[in-house]
Amino acid sequence: MPPAIDSLADEIVDHRFKGLPPDAAGLTVRELAAERRDLYTGGFITPVLTLSAEAVAHNLCAMDRFAGRHGLLLAPHGKTTMAPALFRRQLEHGAWGITVAVPHQARVARAFGVRRILLANQLVDHAALAWVAREQDADPGFRLLAFVDSARGVRLMDEGLRAAGAGRRVEVLLELGAEGGRGGVRDAARAGEVADAVAASAGLRLAGVAGYEGEIPGADAEAVRAWLERLCALAVALDREGRFAQIPEIVLSAGGSAWFDAVADAFSRLPPLSRPVAKVLRSGAYLSHDDGRYREVTPFNRRPHEGSLLPAFRLWAQVVSRPEPGLTLLNAGKRDIAYDLGLPEVQAVRTAAGRVRRADGLSVTRLADQHAFLAGPAGPEPGEAESPGMPEVGDWVALGMSHPCTIFEKWPLIPLVAGDGTVTDYVRTFF
Amino acid sequence: MPPAIDSLADEIVDHRFKGLPPDAAGLTVRELAAERRDLYTGGFITPVLTLSAEAVAHNLCAMDRFAGRHGLLLAPHGKTTMAPALFRRQLEHGAWGITVAVPHQARVARAFGVRRILLANQLVDHAALAWVAREQDADPGFRLLAFVDSARGVRLMDEGLRAAGAGRRVEVLLELGAEGGRGGVRDAARAGEVADAVAASAGLRLAGVAGYEGEIPGADAEAVRAWLERLCALAVALDREGRFAQIPEIVLSAGGSAWFDAVADAFSRLPPLSRPVAKVLRSGAYLSHDDGRYREVTPFNRRPHEGSLLPAFRLWAQVVSRPEPGLTLLNAGKRDIAYDLGLPEVQAVRTAAGRVRRADGLSVTRLADQHAFLAGPAGPEPGEAESPGMPEVGDWVALGMSHPCTIFEKWPLIPLVAGDGTVTDYVRTFF
Repeated sequence: MPPAIDSLADEIVDHRFKGLPPDAAGLTVRELAAERRDLYTGGFITPVLTLSAEAVAHNLCAMDRFAGRHGLLLAPHGKTTMAPALFRRQLEHGAWGITVAVPHQARVARAFGVRRILLANQLVDHAALAWVAREQDADPGFRLLAFVDSARGVRLMDEGLRAAGAGRRVEVLLELGAEGGRGGVRDAARAGEVADAVAASAGLRLAGVAGYEGEIPGADAEAVRAWLERLCALAVALDREGRFAQIPEIVLSAGGSAWFDAVADAFSRLPPLSRPVAKVLRSGAYLSHDDGRYREVTPFNRRPHEGSLLPAFRLWAQVVSRPEPGLTLLNAGKRDIAYDLGLPEVQAVRTAAGRVRRADGLSVTRLADQHAFLAGPAGPEPGEAESPGMPEVGDWVALGMSHPCTIFEKWPLIPLVAGDGTVTDYVRTFF
Repeated sequence: MPPAIDSLADEIVDHRFKGLPPDAAGLTVRELAAERRDLYTGGFITPVLTLSAEAVAHNLCAMDRFAGRHGLLLAPHGKTTMAPALFRRQLEHGAWGITVAVPHQARVARAFGVRRILLANQLVDHAALAWVAREQDADPGFRLLAFVDSARGVRLMDEGLRAAGAGRRVEVLLELGAEGGRGGVRDAARAGEVADAVAASAGLRLAGVAGYEGEIPGADAEAVRAWLERLCALAVALDREGRFAQIPEIVLSAGGSAWFDAVADAFSRLPPLSRPVAKVLRSGAYLSHDDGRYREVTPFNRRPHEGSLLPAFRLWAQVVSRPEPGLTLLNAGKRDIAYDLGLPEVQAVRTAAGRVRRADGLSVTRLADQHAFLAGPAGPEPGEAESPGMPEVGDWVALGMSHPCTIFEKWPLIPLVAGDGTVTDYVRTFF
């Protein structure tokens, strides 16, 4: 990747970045990182989200090994992190490309030099198509692959590229869906129509098939397996029809973060096609993992011998009020904490004196825009001022959260923290 | 406000800003605004959030008039917008100051020259207190007022200021809460303890009383009225005790966006105190208003003769897939759309040819990270391909949303659009 990414280290640390030390204002990110400040005593203000340096490194390796073992390529979903420095580390760990959901995300990846972008949606926005055409024509090494799932979509995409005077064709993957699911054709007949439309277009080229098993209705192991077989069968059928005769390699892609074991199994059973097949997994949440949904659904729960993921996020908030027995208020809320797939869990309490203890029995009961409501295992006994173990005003409280996509998005510059509390670097996000 | 705010117009329009035209990359915000592009044909990419220039102007005037009529000052809650350009317009419309929830937000307001900041929480973060001390000591014209609700909080705050070598005292407002509510003392005995602690401190000075009626349990007109009477009674009691003998003016503050009529009534009945009283309303949501919660709860529903607010946000997303009858997918999801206080409403459909129609009967049934699921009034008749009125792939769909605080936060640069579709300016936010 080009030097653009290094320029992030030249950004000035200022009011734009919550959680960062006010007394660092005016330093560059590089200069602040070089100071190797301590997270707890280095002037960071609460709330502050942190990423564990060790957990991120562990997770990068775990997915690289999993993919390698199963002959899969990785195009991690970049929408999760939207962090070019993490894209770079994923590419350095062997990723084939970066997946995105919308053209804006493709622009961010492209601004930092990503050369293979998988846009996992139909792209019919004329202004965005003009941008794609410009980028592709300016750099022969840049390759954008988009999903298609309707003849109308193909026609609009082709019109947009023609209006933009695109020189190179844009590669497309025929998206398979499922009844009651999200995007993607529902059957072979529609798939044929879409493939015909692509063949008839001036600006597109069919490069493979793709889909997302995570959005099929009632996704369980059996439903996912059956759907993945359909996906493979579609690739086989299109190949037999000679739909890939013009290309050197067929792309076959599936895989979120909940079923990549099933994807590996299904893809391993794909019969030989007329061309080599790039089997591309698009998992994104693995990089930070989480303390909620993805902890529950990671395939490594089923296959512990294949690896593991570590939760990398920890949000530190401060107790700002304990206004009545049984109620403790933290200075972090919906603005800071992911809440769409469950409330955060309380992991630890740190006193101003630096004593850290586990937070057994504490829970977050609700969030306001800027506050979390914390409760103990039970209300205080009658006559007691407070239940035992509740943190005091001024204490820091560590929260683990659910859903990486809605954690990253709330923090534009995230300290990367080593196990001893040293902040070794900062991760910039663009949402 | 100082020139810092004008520097926002010097920012380069680039990959950081979703929705903005890719072909504007390299222009400054000022240059792009001068082009007065058309929202629909000017190269903006979907999804794109817009703010109505007319609605914002209307709402600024409506609240200014309401406050003026009732002898209230406005310190609009800046956490809602986090937009310095909107802070400036609020101050130009007579606002007394800007309210914030956490030190980071105070930093943003301060970076753009706000000189009176109301921090509506207890502030016990030592690094943040050191920042406050530096700012106050560097600028005699800067005034930060924070809430306090416990003797421990007062002591920690005082310690932090002392550790920072603060020269000037920080003004504090004694926060009143309610049993089962959020922050704030629950009774007069605790209020007295906190006031005593402030009096005994070296670094604080009691400047008044404050609270938030929106978080009292079961807030209805009667409960809010009763609580506001308690707030006024607390101000009277502290004044009679001579707690405000050292200050020229007493601050009395309440008011979110749902009960400012009740606040106006209660504050109008405050008996004369020993000092002039600055009666400060902290409403924030009025500026953009919304198409959900705040449309329901605005006090102007009860008092239409006193004014009105107009919903200013409109999100344009594009149909990217219509994979089966009855299901239409938009390219905007949790990343773009507020969802914590209800799903968005579908307001209009715009075809590529520029025909706009109302979206009667269409609704958003669920959101994924990057998709909205759109349904018609009923599924298609058996044998029909689609129910009538559903938008086609490529159409733009306008969504109205609920909860300004979680709309603004998702968009770093928001086009301000005139009624004729001309983009006249851009609003930068810092979350």
